Amino acid sequence: MDAISVIRTKRDRGELTPEQIDWVIDAYTRGEVADEQMSALAMAILLNGMNRAEIARWTAAMIASGERMDFSSLSRPTADKHSTGGVGDKITLPLAPLVAACGAAVPQLSGRGLGHTGGTLDKLESIPGWRALLSNEEMLHVLDTTGAVICAAGDGLAPADKKLYALRDVTGTVEAIPLIASSIMSKKIAEGTGSLVLDVKVGSGAFMKNIDDARELASTMVGLGTDHGVKTVALLTDMSTPLGLTAGNALEVRESVEVLAGGGPADVVELTIALAREMLDAAGVKDADPAKALADGSAMDVWRRMIAAQGGDPDATLPVAREQHVVTAPESGVLTRLDAYDVGVAAWRLGAGRARKEDPVQAGAGVELHAKPGDTVTAGQPLMTLHTDTPEKFDYALKSLEGSWDIAAAGTSFTPKPIVLDRIA
Amino acid sequence: MDAISVIRTKRDRGELTPEQIDWVIDAYTRGEVADEQMSALAMAILLNGMNRAEIARWTAAMIASGERMDFSSLSRPTADKHSTGGVGDKITLPLAPLVAACGAAVPQLSGRGLGHTGGTLDKLESIPGWRALLSNEEMLHVLDTTGAVICAAGDGLAPADKKLYALRDVTGTVEAIPLIASSIMSKKIAEGTGSLVLDVKVGSGAFMKNIDDARELASTMVGLGTDHGVKTVALLTDMSTPLGLTAGNALEVRESVEVLAGGGPADVVELTIALAREMLDAAGVKDADPAKALADGSAMDVWRRMIAAQGGDPDATLPVAREQHVVTAPESGVLTRLDAYDVGVAAWRLGAGRARKEDPVQAGAGVELHAKPGDTVTAGQPLMTLHTDTPEKFDYALKSLEGSWDIAAAGTSFTPKPIVLDRIA
Repeated sequence: MDAISVIRTKRDRGELTPEQIDWVIDAYTRGEVADEQMSALAMAILLNGMNRAEIARWTAAMIASGERMDFSSLSRPTADKHSTGGVGDKITLPLAPLVAACGAAVPQLSGRGLGHTGGTLDKLESIPGWRALLSNEEMLHVLDTTGAVICAAGDGLAPADKKLYALRDVTGTVEAIPLIASSIMSKKIAEGTGSLVLDVKVGSGAFMKNIDDARELASTMVGLGTDHGVKTVALLTDMSTPLGLTAGNALEVRESVEVLAGGGPADVVELTIALAREMLDAAGVKDADPAKALADGSAMDVWRRMIAAQGGDPDATLPVAREQHVVTAPESGVLTRLDAYDVGVAAWRLGAGRARKEDPVQAGAGVELHAKPGDTVTAGQPLMTLHTDTPEKFDYALKSLEGSWDIAAAGTSFTPKPIVLDRIA
Repeated sequence: MDAISVIRTKRDRGELTPEQIDWVIDAYTRGEVADEQMSALAMAILLNGMNRAEIARWTAAMIASGERMDFSSLSRPTADKHSTGGVGDKITLPLAPLVAACGAAVPQLSGRGLGHTGGTLDKLESIPGWRALLSNEEMLHVLDTTGAVICAAGDGLAPADKKLYALRDVTGTVEAIPLIASSIMSKKIAEGTGSLVLDVKVGSGAFMKNIDDARELASTMVGLGTDHGVKTVALLTDMSTPLGLTAGNALEVRESVEVLAGGGPADVVELTIALAREMLDAAGVKDADPAKALADGSAMDVWRRMIAAQGGDPDATLPVAREQHVVTAPESGVLTRLDAYDVGVAAWRLGAGRARKEDPVQAGAGVELHAKPGDTVTAGQPLMTLHTDTPEKFDYALKSLEGSWDIAAAGTSFTPKPIVLDRIA
């Protein structure tokens, strides 16, 4: 077996054999297959595709490259969620404690943000004292005692994916559905969850810009989960406009706490409850009522215990950015469009995100919206507030917001898009 | 400008801009663009192609990565030849002195063999004392005093190509016509020849297996040469069966000397004269008669001076392999097929070629043919003799010869393929 023959097979539109896939993933992890060989293979996969059998084997080989976790000692069934990433997507924060309050165990191994979408760990790190990095034992302990844990994935899970993900990032080979699907699913399957709900975002602020690509990615991942004995369901959800009214780390924590307190923006509440129902259903938890668990404070109780168990102070005042800039509506009418990508890029430029993995993020930076599509606005009223510690970036952030919204004549009828666009099981 | 955006352009079937091409070649040569990025780009080029403008710019950027030679001080016009490589293709050896004897100057910067086709330098190094490595000054001196020089290309010519060629070799991205064409032509144009004749081989023993691919490669190269002011012509020639009766280093030198002495196999003589006529015509030399220069010994005179000028002894006995094994015809009839690739692999396995760049070659190893397609053979008569210093390789070499020839019933009419299949100017 050698790297060139594997590359040639895919280059010439052939099907990789199970032996070729096992060998190339293992040899790449060990450093026998070089980065320049794997990137050529990744480009051939991006352009020529892989069929379901190849993707399944590729995923299995990445799982086999590292350790697998085991939650069988827990008394509750486990349910996990993965979002492909969107602007203002703080759903994991209220969702994990909510599902735990309803009776499932929620092990949420999360990542940091890169580019215009924020990372769950970056958001939680705006809470004073909170630690993302836990040992496997600490993680199991938090999960067992509070019902939920949100923490960084250990280095031992799917190391092949870790190495390949970093390579794809610098070689223009990120946008390959087989590689995206196997990357996400290898980590989730190695993590050992019993059930998994995928939130596949569609729209300008998402990785998948159109619903057909999103559907293909979703069904590929559902197939992979099912093949590996993980009960997997996907919701395709709208990401043409930001979720909720905030995009930025501490801003999103504040909004999440509002949801856990029974309030919060309607779209965030709706999607949180929809995903909670899917997770509880997939985990086999009967007769749970997520809406009630938000209303009666039981989800908030889990949140407070979970944050405290990782060193965070749930009562601490959240960081606020040093400077604010208000953007006002230039005319009166109905807001009919507010572009998710543009808002995400603005939040990123204000300091909420990072350009390189090693960059820090600002806890208080981001964009706070005062109107969403469907709302009536009056000329001169605040449309959004930009927050940053680096006010010299206001102009740069404002550039990304040029042409990012439409205001139609007052009285124009407008039907907002539904949050959940489709369900794939 | 960054590598990822250049890769994405080609990945998404876009046209690379002149600025992107200049930047990526220069940055790769300097090490700013990493190997894993260039290999992803090479795979995208292989699968999505480049148009004529892109290939021209890519070639110009590779030329600009190093030094250019200048033969304008010579009193004669320069003519060079490049073969895409074949089994038994020793044509450069008789051709360079022949064209010099007819009045042109022939600067022949050559390479070593890798894989089943031999390298011109490897062949000449079987002559005791002969040196491939000359300084630019030595090279010009040999060329000026003898009319021809065959030597290794210096490191200063198209260093971008040198680096990219080594990368393509290990990443399954060799077989891309735009990259093959720009690799060959960047070296030839940087070398500074006034005219160039390309021998594009077609058939099992060649890089190009079918005539359409060969024609595309040939017209791409002719276009590149013409665009850079080098008078360029291509012949498409047959490589379905070995050229001449020998494949192996010293074996081919011996056959070349036979041609220079006015003898030698008909196909080698025919192709040598056809290429000599093209070179002389391209260089603007009138009224030359290559056939006469072979017959009257003037080509042989140049050969002897050229070999001696590089330290070689033209009268020395050539090395002979320690062991021989004769393969006999299993039945009587007409030989209708003798596969070039299989013979090339046999010669390679016997020690005439190398598997890795740093391997040595055996001077005496190779295959000597006693019959060619069209010849009548009798059961038990020698079909070929295998030569090697490592007789333990006989079985391995014989494996590659299984099924490599056909013998039809005696009296079967057989028309051999013409040597020259097409001409592109």
